[in-house]
Amino acid sequence: MRKAYHEELDRIAESLVEMTHLAASAMSRATTALLDADVHLADSVITADAEIDSRRERIDLLSFDLLALQQPVATDLRVVVTSMRMSSDIERMGDLARHVAKVARLRYPESAVPAELRSTFREMGQVAELIVEKTGSVIAGRDIAAAREIEADDDAMDRLHRHLFEHVTSSEWPHDTETAVDITLLGRYYERFADHAVSVAERVVWIVTGEWGNEANGSHEDAEDDATGRAV
Amino acid sequence: MRKAYHEELDRIAESLVEMTHLAASAMSRATTALLDADVHLADSVITADAEIDSRRERIDLLSFDLLALQQPVATDLRVVVTSMRMSSDIERMGDLARHVAKVARLRYPESAVPAELRSTFREMGQVAELIVEKTGSVIAGRDIAAAREIEADDDAMDRLHRHLFEHVTSSEWPHDTETAVDITLLGRYYERFADHAVSVAERVVWIVTGEWGNEANGSHEDAEDDATGRAV
Repeated sequence: MRKAYHEELDRIAESLVEMTHLAASAMSRATTALLDADVHLADSVITADAEIDSRRERIDLLSFDLLALQQPVATDLRVVVTSMRMSSDIERMGDLARHVAKVARLRYPESAVPAELRSTFREMGQVAELIVEKTGSVIAGRDIAAAREIEADDDAMDRLHRHLFEHVTSSEWPHDTETAVDITLLGRYYERFADHAVSVAERVVWIVTGEWGNEANGSHEDAEDDATGRAV
Repeated sequence: MRKAYHEELDRIAESLVEMTHLAASAMSRATTALLDADVHLADSVITADAEIDSRRERIDLLSFDLLALQQPVATDLRVVVTSMRMSSDIERMGDLARHVAKVARLRYPESAVPAELRSTFREMGQVAELIVEKTGSVIAGRDIAAAREIEADDDAMDRLHRHLFEHVTSSEWPHDTETAVDITLLGRYYERFADHAVSVAERVVWIVTGEWGNEANGSHEDAEDDATGRAV
């Protein structure tokens, strides 16, 4: 019975890692679609989001079965419940990538991103891809050191996001308001994508150590807010 | 043993309902702080958010205890797991109200909201307050009819949000880019607040009926996106 139980847990962990790969791919392709004004690529991201959603549903079913049939306690219980939370986080990351793809599609045949911000968005796309692939490694290997790296990647995303924000709100902003609105929303999507990756990593750390890392859950966003002087 | 179990479930439900009252109050006061440029009221919302977070933590502890000690199955299991998800949704609603309060504080002594948008924001605040109070009724009474009403309230929020969006992106937008950015983010905070309330209501419906309502989980945002022609 214990063997079957651990096989079930392994299946859940594998599904979670799969989800991180799908989310990485989604955000990477959404960023390319955005920069290249590639409407077909944008459409493929939008369609593929259903794959991520269905993984989350499957993890829910596996977890419910485990809870009902195996009735885990202590750390095992923590693992199962936390896995369901992680799958919700990663599903949300997929949604955010889909939102990026939708902006790309909306602006076709133009790119939604002004020339002077292209390198910033390319970098945000790369950080997003890296951060969620690392999250997969953290889940697969219960790798606490990698979880700490993710915090540094998230700081990098915060800096890029802040740069975006400062540019859009500066007196030298050379584009129209509609572009400012698009960039504001896009920046928030990438920012929240990274936030969710940090949440997932923190949950793995909690399973392994029983601790929440440097900040209490939820105050991560506050730290950003205070750094930018505004709620972003 | 069954009696103790049902008392535990009742305590969880009561905590959830309490959270909805706190979230309603938070969003109502944040909206007032925003419209009146009331920095003290804004600060009180920001401080009080910790109350909402601590309720979520308590629900987690109660739920874990229940799962470990009572080992529920079937519908009971569904209720416990779903309660944890609902508490995360309501916690997030509290965070969104805090973000609104932060914008209010940032812009003090001005109001962040231009004159011609005051009535729109006042209405969004009222819809937000109503929708989360109704969510509390849905949880307390397993009230499916009220859950349907919430969908209508959410449609009302979508219309207000769309109005905001159209005004900000129109060629007649008479304010600076920084104001456009603030309004864009504020609109998204109210929008997501209502989305989370709908999620909570849908979860209660699922507990009671086993069904997800009119739309598959997650496609609610897509329906909005399609209506506005953009990802908002």
